[in-house]
Amino acid sequence: MATTTSKRRRDQPVGLVAGGLIDRRTVLRRALALPFLAPLTHAASAESVNAERPAWMRAPGVPMSAYGRPSAYEADVVRAVAQEYRGIAPEAGVSLTPLHRLRGSITPAGLHFERHHSGVPQIDPGRHHLMIHGEVERPLVFGVDALLRYPVETRIGFVECAGNSFPNAADRAPAKTCGAIHGLLSNSEWGGVSLRRLLDEAGLRKTARWLIAEGADAAAMVRSIPLSMALDDGMVALYQNGERLRPEQGYPARLWFPGLEGNLHIKWVRRIKVSERPAHSRDETSKYSDRLADGSALQFTLEMGVKSIITMPSGQMQLPRPGWYEIEGLAWSGSGRVRAVDVSADGGHSWVAAHLDDPALDRALTRFRIPWEWRGEPQVIESRAVDESGAVQPTREHWKRRYAAGQIYHNNAIQRWRVDAQGRVENHFG
Amino acid sequence: MATTTSKRRRDQPVGLVAGGLIDRRTVLRRALALPFLAPLTHAASAESVNAERPAWMRAPGVPMSAYGRPSAYEADVVRAVAQEYRGIAPEAGVSLTPLHRLRGSITPAGLHFERHHSGVPQIDPGRHHLMIHGEVERPLVFGVDALLRYPVETRIGFVECAGNSFPNAADRAPAKTCGAIHGLLSNSEWGGVSLRRLLDEAGLRKTARWLIAEGADAAAMVRSIPLSMALDDGMVALYQNGERLRPEQGYPARLWFPGLEGNLHIKWVRRIKVSERPAHSRDETSKYSDRLADGSALQFTLEMGVKSIITMPSGQMQLPRPGWYEIEGLAWSGSGRVRAVDVSADGGHSWVAAHLDDPALDRALTRFRIPWEWRGEPQVIESRAVDESGAVQPTREHWKRRYAAGQIYHNNAIQRWRVDAQGRVENHFG
Repeated sequence: MATTTSKRRRDQPVGLVAGGLIDRRTVLRRALALPFLAPLTHAASAESVNAERPAWMRAPGVPMSAYGRPSAYEADVVRAVAQEYRGIAPEAGVSLTPLHRLRGSITPAGLHFERHHSGVPQIDPGRHHLMIHGEVERPLVFGVDALLRYPVETRIGFVECAGNSFPNAADRAPAKTCGAIHGLLSNSEWGGVSLRRLLDEAGLRKTARWLIAEGADAAAMVRSIPLSMALDDGMVALYQNGERLRPEQGYPARLWFPGLEGNLHIKWVRRIKVSERPAHSRDETSKYSDRLADGSALQFTLEMGVKSIITMPSGQMQLPRPGWYEIEGLAWSGSGRVRAVDVSADGGHSWVAAHLDDPALDRALTRFRIPWEWRGEPQVIESRAVDESGAVQPTREHWKRRYAAGQIYHNNAIQRWRVDAQGRVENHFG
Repeated sequence: MATTTSKRRRDQPVGLVAGGLIDRRTVLRRALALPFLAPLTHAASAESVNAERPAWMRAPGVPMSAYGRPSAYEADVVRAVAQEYRGIAPEAGVSLTPLHRLRGSITPAGLHFERHHSGVPQIDPGRHHLMIHGEVERPLVFGVDALLRYPVETRIGFVECAGNSFPNAADRAPAKTCGAIHGLLSNSEWGGVSLRRLLDEAGLRKTARWLIAEGADAAAMVRSIPLSMALDDGMVALYQNGERLRPEQGYPARLWFPGLEGNLHIKWVRRIKVSERPAHSRDETSKYSDRLADGSALQFTLEMGVKSIITMPSGQMQLPRPGWYEIEGLAWSGSGRVRAVDVSADGGHSWVAAHLDDPALDRALTRFRIPWEWRGEPQVIESRAVDESGAVQPTREHWKRRYAAGQIYHNNAIQRWRVDAQGRVENHFG
């Protein structure tokens, strides 16, 4: 039978901080079993569960399969193709990771966000090559088989589009889910060949300062990467989450640079030209530059800033009733590990340290969590990350002051969610 | 143009150990760029790569998609349904993870191994319940929605079937791939509700010593778990690699116990009875017990032993020619972290420490690697893991001596691969 544990325990005093937050140390010190909402939600009796044998226990299920897929009951957990792009060329646009439907830190490859300029090329790996040339002693050409024979290094890390959170550039807070706002962000175990190893083999000349990389899509995407950044753990990625790259992630080979803006991680990479100077390509002049409030612009601001978002509860969710919840979210930084995430549930007046899940890796998504009691009143919740360099995630006001109107890149401003008296959660700029 | 870097550098002296192995410290100390085989394999010139625009650069690719899938060119990277079971009931059997085709440590959910007794039930989460009863103060029934409202804890860890490596119980080494022998082994980021939390809420009586868990498949799988082991990080898992469980992994809910034999992690879990004594179910008497050489048998040997396998090069592979390779493999232990993996390339006479990839997590697959020069002669390669408890992976001879003939469970014996003079790699018992 269903119990009323929640009601019973809610009367016990707990070490509350402003807004119903309670930090993990308090929970652990008092060995509190917080009364989460679950047991109240079902009235089925133990006897009825035991007696009822559902249809799937009365006949064999389906046999083993070669490659598994999600349950049909999870068919709505998909990438969202941004409406902004529908009706233009269907091959150009973005699809976003449904961050508010996922837990943990790994993004399934099938749900990794996409940004394409001319669609996903279907590349035969037997006919794909990677050329390294320019300011090198020995130009090299690698077939995919050749790349696969090198030692494969792996590391877990994020890719975030420089334009992530673009809906929040609007003047009014758009009523969207967390994934629809911030889902140009995913986290994978990437495996590939160290760029340092391949460049060493080609032999860098003293004049080498930049890499100019080109993809084998119809748009022939081109970006310039400072050599020093490329040699800092950059790789020619061949694997994602254990298996070969998916086509939309650059199969058979892409670049991957921990912590740097997503546009740089050239997919379907076919050419790396070592150069004295950057290319100043279309994506470095008309796009992916940061217009400042004073009228000037910054190019090559490649490292992604420290950032966090609360994923649960978040935009468009409905809290069923007042009671205990766990606020959960993701934090990351392009310059190293996340050192701390503070959460406020009173509009930014007071902050409490959240728990960071293990393993909190360098330039990888890190999950944070903190218990919270919602008492049925309107409240604003938000999170603020600090990275190991000491950088602090800015408020929206602070971030807006720095940039010109219309700036969408490198928006790492704090995300606020407002819970109204009915438990409805909405994006909130106030 | 293709270079001859490999040939040039192969003449340099390197700090070789027996059998062509070279340890990582030597590589790092001498800043050696080992001449891996890649550049010799392609003769395409830089000019031809640059001039040729393949078909996929001349027309747009395919648009964004809701849920991604592997490239059509990787259609052979699938789970292998073991031939041993074909022709009996198609719903009973195993499919194995193709370990020799994967890199890194995470297993994609679609390739996680399967072991079913009566197929995969297709469960409607709205009609599934989990009951906790028996030696508790308050029997509880949870709907799936209720479970999803609890805090979700995540951790990366392996599941290994107690019968993994069963082909190696044969008297002669079967000519199989690494995945076909050892592929009842996978590694995921699991997310779910702590069993301790749910059992605390039900209130354990003083008599509570075991959990008896039942699945909602047609076989109604039942296993007994000592309470002390269940409280040590056991969870009701709801998520795998960020998304909800796949049907064949227990959707909508399964048990997961870090480091314990796979059969215990009851999928589609519907009932947990807290008990003074174990159930002595079919899978605890006729199966999943260990018959010893002296005629006695061990029950409830639940912790998986320390183990490692070389995945590259491994059974049925073909080395294209003599030269430098990187030996790569996986190591794990049910009792904690892997402390070291030693590799031998001379039939077990000498051993060299391999490099362990970060992060080397508690009760999770850990990748190891070591450079190796194959000089075109027959050689036997093998790996031996040691865990943080000091347990050492046994040789096949040592393992066989302990158990009765026909024992297939808990086979953590060292896997030897023999490379013949033509570079063909085969399973080897000698």
